[in-house]
Amino acid sequence: MASKSSPKLISGGLPLHEVPGFRCGTAYAGIQKPGRGQRDVGVLYAPDGASAAAVFTRNQAAAAPVIISRKVAARGLVSAVVVNAGNANACTGKRGLQDARTMMEVASAALGVPATEILVASTGVIGRPLPMEKIRAGIWDAALEATGSGKGRLERAILTTDLVEKRAACRFALGGRKVTVAGITKGSGMIAPNMATTLSFIVTDLDAPAAVLRKALRPACEESFNCLTVDGEASTNDCAFLLASGHSGKRIARASGPSFDRFRKALTTVCVELARRIARDGEGATKLVTVNVAGARSARDARTAARAVAESLLVKTAMFGCDPNWGRILSAIGQTEAKMDLARARVSAGGVPVYDRRPLRIDARSAARKLKRREVSIDVDLRLGKGRATVYTCDLSYDYVKINAEYHT
Amino acid sequence: MASKSSPKLISGGLPLHEVPGFRCGTAYAGIQKPGRGQRDVGVLYAPDGASAAAVFTRNQAAAAPVIISRKVAARGLVSAVVVNAGNANACTGKRGLQDARTMMEVASAALGVPATEILVASTGVIGRPLPMEKIRAGIWDAALEATGSGKGRLERAILTTDLVEKRAACRFALGGRKVTVAGITKGSGMIAPNMATTLSFIVTDLDAPAAVLRKALRPACEESFNCLTVDGEASTNDCAFLLASGHSGKRIARASGPSFDRFRKALTTVCVELARRIARDGEGATKLVTVNVAGARSARDARTAARAVAESLLVKTAMFGCDPNWGRILSAIGQTEAKMDLARARVSAGGVPVYDRRPLRIDARSAARKLKRREVSIDVDLRLGKGRATVYTCDLSYDYVKINAEYHT
Repeated sequence: MASKSSPKLISGGLPLHEVPGFRCGTAYAGIQKPGRGQRDVGVLYAPDGASAAAVFTRNQAAAAPVIISRKVAARGLVSAVVVNAGNANACTGKRGLQDARTMMEVASAALGVPATEILVASTGVIGRPLPMEKIRAGIWDAALEATGSGKGRLERAILTTDLVEKRAACRFALGGRKVTVAGITKGSGMIAPNMATTLSFIVTDLDAPAAVLRKALRPACEESFNCLTVDGEASTNDCAFLLASGHSGKRIARASGPSFDRFRKALTTVCVELARRIARDGEGATKLVTVNVAGARSARDARTAARAVAESLLVKTAMFGCDPNWGRILSAIGQTEAKMDLARARVSAGGVPVYDRRPLRIDARSAARKLKRREVSIDVDLRLGKGRATVYTCDLSYDYVKINAEYHT
Repeated sequence: MASKSSPKLISGGLPLHEVPGFRCGTAYAGIQKPGRGQRDVGVLYAPDGASAAAVFTRNQAAAAPVIISRKVAARGLVSAVVVNAGNANACTGKRGLQDARTMMEVASAALGVPATEILVASTGVIGRPLPMEKIRAGIWDAALEATGSGKGRLERAILTTDLVEKRAACRFALGGRKVTVAGITKGSGMIAPNMATTLSFIVTDLDAPAAVLRKALRPACEESFNCLTVDGEASTNDCAFLLASGHSGKRIARASGPSFDRFRKALTTVCVELARRIARDGEGATKLVTVNVAGARSARDARTAARAVAESLLVKTAMFGCDPNWGRILSAIGQTEAKMDLARARVSAGGVPVYDRRPLRIDARSAARKLKRREVSIDVDLRLGKGRATVYTCDLSYDYVKINAEYHT
């Protein structure tokens, strides 16, 4: 959760190419149906190279690009990211691995950088081979834009069933210099058509070695993407990449101290905002629901409790129905290992206190009005300790069922 | 899962009063709206007493009747069960405990048996005090029927948002005597209006001490109610009661040996059938979905994998949409701790093989036709070991959202 001392977000975020040291190119290769953003291949290009860190899905069915990119990320030096939307290259066996490698090779040839410095990501249908001829042409086109104007809208090229583009950015001063952190993401449930994916690309002009980036990215993901649940599913393709160009001239050499803390906070702020944008754009979602649990016996208990509330279908349908249903909230927590005592707990929904050691009398109509907003929170105080956690989710509507039932393999 | 040697189910089950040693009475006390079965208070009466065992919800927000009944069940001797539908007497604090005790006392007076031998159960809205005057009158009426004709339809008096009554029974021979096990249940998601409950009452004319019943009931519940998931919620009021009248004259004194095994199997068969009936009547469900996982590294892995598939919203919406979506199935397992290897796994949906070490070509139209049935199965063979598990669930439809979003506290 962004505290008051957190760096301020730039309204609407920034295109990644506005961060010094990065250029973007996109193309429409015909992998997705036309009309759906008209972009389905993208290249993020760091002409002078970048140090890099990455976090990947833990799903055992990890897709080919994840398997390939893990090795690149481990080396920590990256000159480009190549990505396609519309086909996830997941559950595609040996051919899928070869296709992911081919994507790297084509990008390498088109950009003139070593293939070993290229991260690859895919999102879309699973279980189908990539249409390599289309992708090959798309990568060449995208690379042409990346090395030319460099102002391609990468945030558009990664969308599948997302309804909106998602960006977040912030700037902060560090030793008299201005440093920028900007990110883009996609994801709106695990879908499109078999499942979707959270892809997040974050860039900064900071100068920092890969080891420092890793130390910042892991906790930032823990507090953001890992606190996000649309339908409780973790995809085969989820990944977050962080690239640092060094163009600001400001260097952070170690993963400690006030400069590092400032950077870590900025990165976390950007990641949290990206996660919130995903939840708000959740499949069929009508609202962003932020679940705050305080007073848990431990941080772990708080996380367990917040996640249980956020994943409860009963709570999510209640939020859709604008019903401040404390019974569903407390029962969701009661089922978990997280310690709870009905005689102590306090619950607010949409800012309306509904339970405080016992059910409270509420004005249902006024509460429903508050829950009609596009952003609502559920606040639980267990009054048992100091554990706190926040989880972001969305409500569960008819449209979630429609979107997910109507697609046919 | 019922094996071939399992005792045969009696089609449609039996009313509990057809098991020697048990009588039933019901009444309409006006706790629920009229029309909803017209019965909302019930009494199960064992004039000669019964030994008893019980399994209760592990939800920390356990309702007052659960707290009270735990003590009665621990003593193992029961003469009656008193139950109401329409109000769960949950999250009601001290007053709730007193009300549950009052229900026992009224039943005690009306039936002429000690209050310490009466189990009490409630299901319905949470967080509201029981309407005690109505309930008091209802218990007297139900007791009158129980001690009179004794043929009240208890399976009707426990329903809330359930669409159908749910019974299951089987008879088996034991040392030349016929023994009957009959059960009733209610539950269709956690709902109505805040949440609903799985209440299961099972009776037998076997003669067995409480210790033996406990040893049989716990694993039977593990294989049935605990393998059931409509929306992943465990209610504040869930309980299963097993009462043995001894009227068959057949005694099982120890929790081992072939007689005990036969009884345990019969009890498990009845519980599994009750669980299947709950899943089939799940909120908004159009079909029963049985998830079978085989070849897991361990029984625990199998259970984890089967539950993940059964609880996946993506799988449940795919089943509603009649889509044999192996990608969602494998990805649901891939997210868990259960070991999986895409290069070994096999998946069938609705009896149609859809994945076998790789995606299979399928006739989507014929597969969709098979998935249109009222009962479908998802079969996964992980080919990694001998672990097996079965979990029962239902599909996720528009109506689930409707039912759960439209209720207002």
